Amino acid sequence: MNSWILAYEGYNPEEEGLREALCTLGNGYFATRGANAESSADGVHYPGTYLAGGYNRLTTEIAGREIENEDLVNMPNWLCLRFRIQGGEWFSPDDAEIFFYRQELDIRCGVLKRTVRFEDSRGRRMNMEERRIVHMGDHHLAALETTLSTENFSGTLEIESGLDGGVVNSGVKRYQSLNGRHLEVLETEAREDAPLFLKARTVQSERRVALAARTRLFNKQAGLNPKPEIIEENGYIAKRFSVDVSENEKIRVEKTVTLHTSQDRAISECSLAAKHDIQCAGDFSELLKTHIIAWEHLWRRFDIRMTDRRKNRRDDRPEMILRLYTFHLIQTTSLHTIDLDVGVPARGWHGEAYRGHIFWDELFIFPAITLQQPEITRSLLLYRFRRLDSARRAASAAGYKGAMYPWQSGSSGREESQEVHLNPKSGRWIPDNSHLQKHVNAAIAFNICKYYESTGDDQFMTAYGAEMLFEIARFWSSIATWNEEYERYEILGVMGPDEYHDGYPDADKPGLDNNAYTNLMAVWVLTQALKMMETLPRDSVEELCKALFLDQEEKDLWWNISRKMRIVFHDGNIISQFEGYDRLEELDWDKYKKKYDNIQRMDRILEAENDSPNRYKMTKQADVLMLFYLFSSEELKGLFKQLRYPFEYETIPRNVDYYVRRTSYGSTLSWVVHSWVMARSDRARSWTLFLEALESDISDIQGGTTQEGIHLGAMAGAVNILQEAYMGIKTRGEVLWIDPCLPEALEKVEMQIHYRGDTVEFKTTQEMCKVKLVSSRRNSLKIGFGDGIYDLTIGTSRMFQL
Amino acid sequence: MNSWILAYEGYNPEEEGLREALCTLGNGYFATRGANAESSADGVHYPGTYLAGGYNRLTTEIAGREIENEDLVNMPNWLCLRFRIQGGEWFSPDDAEIFFYRQELDIRCGVLKRTVRFEDSRGRRMNMEERRIVHMGDHHLAALETTLSTENFSGTLEIESGLDGGVVNSGVKRYQSLNGRHLEVLETEAREDAPLFLKARTVQSERRVALAARTRLFNKQAGLNPKPEIIEENGYIAKRFSVDVSENEKIRVEKTVTLHTSQDRAISECSLAAKHDIQCAGDFSELLKTHIIAWEHLWRRFDIRMTDRRKNRRDDRPEMILRLYTFHLIQTTSLHTIDLDVGVPARGWHGEAYRGHIFWDELFIFPAITLQQPEITRSLLLYRFRRLDSARRAASAAGYKGAMYPWQSGSSGREESQEVHLNPKSGRWIPDNSHLQKHVNAAIAFNICKYYESTGDDQFMTAYGAEMLFEIARFWSSIATWNEEYERYEILGVMGPDEYHDGYPDADKPGLDNNAYTNLMAVWVLTQALKMMETLPRDSVEELCKALFLDQEEKDLWWNISRKMRIVFHDGNIISQFEGYDRLEELDWDKYKKKYDNIQRMDRILEAENDSPNRYKMTKQADVLMLFYLFSSEELKGLFKQLRYPFEYETIPRNVDYYVRRTSYGSTLSWVVHSWVMARSDRARSWTLFLEALESDISDIQGGTTQEGIHLGAMAGAVNILQEAYMGIKTRGEVLWIDPCLPEALEKVEMQIHYRGDTVEFKTTQEMCKVKLVSSRRNSLKIGFGDGIYDLTIGTSRMFQL
Repeated sequence: MNSWILAYEGYNPEEEGLREALCTLGNGYFATRGANAESSADGVHYPGTYLAGGYNRLTTEIAGREIENEDLVNMPNWLCLRFRIQGGEWFSPDDAEIFFYRQELDIRCGVLKRTVRFEDSRGRRMNMEERRIVHMGDHHLAALETTLSTENFSGTLEIESGLDGGVVNSGVKRYQSLNGRHLEVLETEAREDAPLFLKARTVQSERRVALAARTRLFNKQAGLNPKPEIIEENGYIAKRFSVDVSENEKIRVEKTVTLHTSQDRAISECSLAAKHDIQCAGDFSELLKTHIIAWEHLWRRFDIRMTDRRKNRRDDRPEMILRLYTFHLIQTTSLHTIDLDVGVPARGWHGEAYRGHIFWDELFIFPAITLQQPEITRSLLLYRFRRLDSARRAASAAGYKGAMYPWQSGSSGREESQEVHLNPKSGRWIPDNSHLQKHVNAAIAFNICKYYESTGDDQFMTAYGAEMLFEIARFWSSIATWNEEYERYEILGVMGPDEYHDGYPDADKPGLDNNAYTNLMAVWVLTQALKMMETLPRDSVEELCKALFLDQEEKDLWWNISRKMRIVFHDGNIISQFEGYDRLEELDWDKYKKKYDNIQRMDRILEAENDSPNRYKMTKQADVLMLFYLFSSEELKGLFKQLRYPFEYETIPRNVDYYVRRTSYGSTLSWVVHSWVMARSDRARSWTLFLEALESDISDIQGGTTQEGIHLGAMAGAVNILQEAYMGIKTRGEVLWIDPCLPEALEKVEMQIHYRGDTVEFKTTQEMCKVKLVSSRRNSLKIGFGDGIYDLTIGTSRMFQL
Repeated sequence: MNSWILAYEGYNPEEEGLREALCTLGNGYFATRGANAESSADGVHYPGTYLAGGYNRLTTEIAGREIENEDLVNMPNWLCLRFRIQGGEWFSPDDAEIFFYRQELDIRCGVLKRTVRFEDSRGRRMNMEERRIVHMGDHHLAALETTLSTENFSGTLEIESGLDGGVVNSGVKRYQSLNGRHLEVLETEAREDAPLFLKARTVQSERRVALAARTRLFNKQAGLNPKPEIIEENGYIAKRFSVDVSENEKIRVEKTVTLHTSQDRAISECSLAAKHDIQCAGDFSELLKTHIIAWEHLWRRFDIRMTDRRKNRRDDRPEMILRLYTFHLIQTTSLHTIDLDVGVPARGWHGEAYRGHIFWDELFIFPAITLQQPEITRSLLLYRFRRLDSARRAASAAGYKGAMYPWQSGSSGREESQEVHLNPKSGRWIPDNSHLQKHVNAAIAFNICKYYESTGDDQFMTAYGAEMLFEIARFWSSIATWNEEYERYEILGVMGPDEYHDGYPDADKPGLDNNAYTNLMAVWVLTQALKMMETLPRDSVEELCKALFLDQEEKDLWWNISRKMRIVFHDGNIISQFEGYDRLEELDWDKYKKKYDNIQRMDRILEAENDSPNRYKMTKQADVLMLFYLFSSEELKGLFKQLRYPFEYETIPRNVDYYVRRTSYGSTLSWVVHSWVMARSDRARSWTLFLEALESDISDIQGGTTQEGIHLGAMAGAVNILQEAYMGIKTRGEVLWIDPCLPEALEKVEMQIHYRGDTVEFKTTQEMCKVKLVSSRRNSLKIGFGDGIYDLTIGTSRMFQL
């Protein structure tokens, strides 16, 4: 196995959904899936393109309640192309006899290839080779090259190349009762002598999408120019070409598509732009050349080269998966969306699950891009900044001050969390209280501070970051209440990251008190906000405080809360996930493991049994453990000291052990966090968990959820384990710290980062770490290692013995 | 006169157009004019709001040719409000007897006030006071407060508050044969119990604009809640309120409007957003409070405080005008458009002249904003970056390499220069060759390099700036041709900034050879591009060169051209404006001065006389002199030396004298450039020219053009004379240089700048200059003065004796 190629051989209808999800091509703006289950029936006719940031509001009657929510919009299908031998059916792998089938994603070049050799029911044999790209250099372009070779027959081939505006959202089974049609075709043009043109709009958000397609045919010698038949039906337009072929003849078809939307910059109107662009577009080989250069430059920044110690092992699977996940990361949080108003949906742009909603996944994703391409993180933070007013209004409506970002959000930044969700196991619609996950606000503040630490981007911080940070701090200070009895501040009635617990057993209303993760994050945010007031230029801070009506009294309150927040403990130094956690029952894990094949989704199992996870000491995913994921032990020690709580050497291992044992791995993030928190204490187990984290999507370990969209947080989290946990690369203050700790299985890891404008190369082995300052605007870099801080000058490297 | 107030007393219908242009309120996104001639007929019903970046393509038959061009789109009229005393006519200053009329623009607070005391034909006396704002803190909001006081009558007042989608472009007389209707109303809602709502679209570019308006009435005691009559007619909707009033009663009307467009970020759909915002909008006093804070923070950055030596002089007119021009500068190149794709039209957003097109005015505008609010310049440079592909295509279509930005452009970045223009003097449509002004490309490159020098923004330069710079350099290298005879490179067939010369007398085709300004700017651009390749991080440059297919051979060509460009001289060291300039006839200035009142537009005079300015040594505006405007004598000396041409001490004064004598001041930029180039050689004349530059719009010295839109380049240029020519503040390399030289009339000038993240205060008098480093991220700043470079540490100041 080549570590740059994801290949599948053999046609397997059952696996098509997963293959499709993993071989998705796109660049954030313009994502397309390689194939999907629905469309494999007609061979190479693949719907499923998503519009970055295209949402529609969805009002549906569910379980007797009217639910209003946002839904990701499908794009017109742009690369659809099908063919048949005269008189036969359109080619479909399900109908033909397949001699050879290979699908290959070239991760390095961003090219999806497919080869099929088949025979139809009349014994006519053909070979099809296909290459497709969504251009990484020009996000308005995509192209498909299809080469059809006859073997044992002559006759007429019919090739149909079209644009299809009739696509619907149907990729997630449990959403099928919702309205899936979000596109209305406004205009089509299909003329023999001009590119196909289709313009559609999203029905509620009224965004326009315009596509133009050019199809050219070639044989060995030259371009063919057959007069096409024009097909126009119900939002689908196509050109159908008939070409006479003899035995052993090759016909090559190039289809190029341009796409513009009404949200694009630098255009007058999207139809004009799409039509203009198609006139200027080069041929497939030209597009491929510039596309590969764009990917080459991305890989220079993003590739992490790891060498396994098992020299003779069979394959490079972990390396390949790491690259596949990085590939998805790059094309989802794309350079191409920097100028658009696009966030990071939990499932990327690759599937319809969660309807494109934005959650807290940035917390896992940003660390894997900020040191590679900080502009991307910046633009994604600006996505949050633009929704600051919406968050302010949400806080105010709920009786709080500052800004309260929603748990799930879409285009306008309002709360889009569902009010009920379906348990497929019981068939019941259950009240959904996930909007109580106020901790998303801490994640946003954390991301702002980390971006600033990695880039030193003062302009961002003064113009945008500080305002968000202060408003979030303000929210935490207003949701915190004073408890006379304990003489401590508390946060009541919220949910932590562990979604199995949304309230106390048999309580009237949802919500938990003093979730340790939430409380400690609030303390951290308040502390950072106060520090930032000292760090940033005085005049900027003054202006901001004046504009926000933020006075000394309020800052004093922040200080007080950040020194007197309550954290609940039990069993000595076990940090209680929330107040009262210790009074919950232990789950009989063995009983359920025996009864069910897979107990990852214990919530669904228990609900179907008329029980509730709220009754048990059991978590879906890391909650208290998130603290050890985000902070070093020194940082945690500092926070606990600030709160006058004890924090001993054994606090971390004891808590890790306590909570890992009580996790059902209901989220793909669990493996990432657990691998991370054991990186130093149990290297072997950490490595095993890392390998499991790597498998999460490629093996669809949640049994079907990958087909509904990749898990971008887990993908990025896995990449970041290498960088931050194993390579030990950490930004702290003005110093770049390294503290490597490779698992035994790894011989060597090499990568490059971009830190505050400097390019730095790392090579880490079991014995040493070599750091090289490749380029710098400051001529020297401060590296922290152990107890020392070392200056590295430009062009030089330094070796640290481990 | 208060230096923060522009006030007019007395109603003068003839002056309304000018008053309106100067009292325009807006924030780039949401500009509105205080009044206009057309609408003064119905009193307080003021059309004229422009949509930032809203363009329509315009196809019109002119002089037998079909002309396609872009046209700025008018916005629905949002603050229209009118009133009448029952049974009378709607109030209009033209019909009523006016006892008192005062219009006042509060420049500091961004508030337009108007007071009118009048009596109608039946002897009923009333007073109206009005305040209006376009909110500087929230660009979706505007508000109007109207207070109506009865004096000697009781009865019923009718007040009508509406939204009008029926506006047309009709502000420029000579465009009236063009189609002026660009808006189509899509939807209106007018209900008694809900805000008014109007949604329109621009007919060709399909942008949606949604407005919602809330109107509330109050008397002295409380809110009134009269049931309104609903008016709906042809794209206009309104609520008409009837209120019974007695003598000496006050009725206060608050109208608040929200506006969203389909181009907005962080919304689902613009109607939803406008309706949602109006629900959340505070009352007038709340909006005013936050609006003033926003302006206060802008003035902290932008205000230049100058003190005239004539202590006892009558008024603060120059200070007031300086602030008025700064005010226009701030609201046109607004912080609010940073997130939109908006450029800087020559006439701002304040009038329809030039149809909102973008020219080269950024060259004059950026220096007045980059050291105040660099984010604005950055976003305006990104406007150019987004149109780089369009410029590449233009270059390629014309047979050149690299990027050729157009002389006039709009939404899509294509060339929008008119092909013919009207001479109102002769009534003839004349071929317009202004697209030959390729020098706009040098201006863009210059702006990129200056922005980088002032900010040190590496991220911008590597991600965007360098690519534009290299592509523009490449264009210059491909348009330059080798002349065997002179063994020099030449640039043939172009136009310089002086638009009076577009070709040789009686030549078949337009264009001039070896325009000195163009050739020298090309040399500068090529030199800077080569330098930038050495300065920027090696890996970024490598990637860029690879992506642009830019090889060593091409760089060698750049180097050669930048050493061997041809400049033509005559009369010894007079730099010929273009090759052959010396062979043109001298104009008999006295003859024309006698014959015509105003000879600023000699082109129109000569054309009407069947003559042509191409025949004469006469310029509309600075051309060769632009070189002395943009470069210091040291820099010019360097460039000439690089080209192996002589450059003596007297070159500058001789050329200044030569060309100033031959200028007709046909552009408002002439005063700016002339004042600048004499700042050191003739301080008194420079000051006189500066004062004339200040008058250019406020006195409408071109006789009517200000009403068609302010001249933003001249306004900013005037501001920048103070900063760069008189205060002598210049960024060069890593050092902030000062070299003050105040005209005798000035006692003191004080200002603040933001240089590379530092805040620096300056106070300059005739004798000294005091520099203080207020805040800095680097803790120290390098100040260059005379032959020395001085370190300034944070919080300290240094006095330089002049």
